[in-house]
Amino acid sequence: MRKHITGFSNPTVKYLRSLRDKKHRKRSGQFLVEGLRLLEDARASGRLPQTLVMAEGREHPLLERLEADVMVAGGEVIATTPDILSKITGKENAQVVAGVFDEWDTSLSALDRGDAPIWLAAQALRDPGNLGTMLRTCDAVGAGGLILIDDCADPFSAEAVRASMGAVFTVGLAQARWDEFLPWLRGGAGQLVAASLRDAVAYRGAAYAAPCFILVGNESQGLPEDYEMACDLRVTMPMRGRADSLNAAVAGAVLAYEVLAGVM
Amino acid sequence: MRKHITGFSNPTVKYLRSLRDKKHRKRSGQFLVEGLRLLEDARASGRLPQTLVMAEGREHPLLERLEADVMVAGGEVIATTPDILSKITGKENAQVVAGVFDEWDTSLSALDRGDAPIWLAAQALRDPGNLGTMLRTCDAVGAGGLILIDDCADPFSAEAVRASMGAVFTVGLAQARWDEFLPWLRGGAGQLVAASLRDAVAYRGAAYAAPCFILVGNESQGLPEDYEMACDLRVTMPMRGRADSLNAAVAGAVLAYEVLAGVM
Repeated sequence: MRKHITGFSNPTVKYLRSLRDKKHRKRSGQFLVEGLRLLEDARASGRLPQTLVMAEGREHPLLERLEADVMVAGGEVIATTPDILSKITGKENAQVVAGVFDEWDTSLSALDRGDAPIWLAAQALRDPGNLGTMLRTCDAVGAGGLILIDDCADPFSAEAVRASMGAVFTVGLAQARWDEFLPWLRGGAGQLVAASLRDAVAYRGAAYAAPCFILVGNESQGLPEDYEMACDLRVTMPMRGRADSLNAAVAGAVLAYEVLAGVM
Repeated sequence: MRKHITGFSNPTVKYLRSLRDKKHRKRSGQFLVEGLRLLEDARASGRLPQTLVMAEGREHPLLERLEADVMVAGGEVIATTPDILSKITGKENAQVVAGVFDEWDTSLSALDRGDAPIWLAAQALRDPGNLGTMLRTCDAVGAGGLILIDDCADPFSAEAVRASMGAVFTVGLAQARWDEFLPWLRGGAGQLVAASLRDAVAYRGAAYAAPCFILVGNESQGLPEDYEMACDLRVTMPMRGRADSLNAAVAGAVLAYEVLAGVM
């Protein structure tokens, strides 16, 4: 049964709105996903929201099916006004629907490195758009997923989820400190490859080996030198211009496609 | 001589602030660039701001040199408070400095296709971050520049300029409708290559020829079919996942690096 909310000051509205803030997401272990398309991606990947929030009077066959699935799974469905949904999402043009998901286990132990020949890893990645784009690239190249090392942007932020085009639901995701990641990596098979300018070989045709972990660094600082030096292979891409770096998500993708050609 | 502004309601403050808005940028033909690093990139590329706006009490040797250069070139230097600079840029943590530049000629006739073996082109690209990232990629691969086709994001927006990491000042930039672009392209040498899923060959090792124009489409819709069919070559990248597309800037970069390996 739908629950109807018509008041802006309803505590549920306040709670849902608070999920736009990282601090509140961390406290509650939940995050908000906007839009039918992303919710459909989640459903197709076997993930349903705990709570579905729909704008009344915006019917859609996919939305009806989603509502039914959420109810069958024991979730909550809230019907509200487009204005209140706008208030929750912070968007002037509200989506038809938003969903609240429980965050899931993002420890390294939740990953199986044998799942895929390629993995992406990012260290201190600050931009949620870059983070989401890297998740999307993981999906495209058939990578197992993205490992976020040290303090990165929140993969469950609205911007990261949106930029991932739903890949946050379909590819692996882990968060770890470097001093957890490196022992985990060395506890099994795995080649760690850094995009680097130091002591590096040409990225094209380098000796990549599966499972290959491609590591990119922070948008401003790049990788710390000791992280680079801990890698099995340092590769560099041609830089013909004035600058000496690429956007982090771009560098990861160019390398991932090269590795894909090399290891498959 | 520095002009001092201490009032929030000063007309110059209002004017500078208005440049955050595309409509006002188009009307005035000027845009605002934030931060010493970008202004230094501009200076190194031979472009100086018409107006330099500095936060008082934030001295820096590079800033002193920039101020001197702007004065010699007949520009205006405004000293103001950090709070007013914050108001102008809309950032809570104001940069030390911002500069106002005249937009330049972005017609196709300003480009010389013989300048470079690679060019990027984007159709209806909506995201200023993607646009700036593509400019940055142009710099990295030694491309001549970026051609924006149909209605794209504004390359002179703060977000595009920032994502370009200064490349907006160093690589070529043109804006044109498709029905201007195609005759211009066919008026000289040039291979038009689309990232495509239709009737496409594998992107890797395809027969690229310089000057090669790499065309990517809108973030949601991709390229219109007739645009793709007007291309000399349609190439496709492996898509191993659930989705059938990459981020537009990522797709452009993966292709650009492949073309770079093929044509150089």
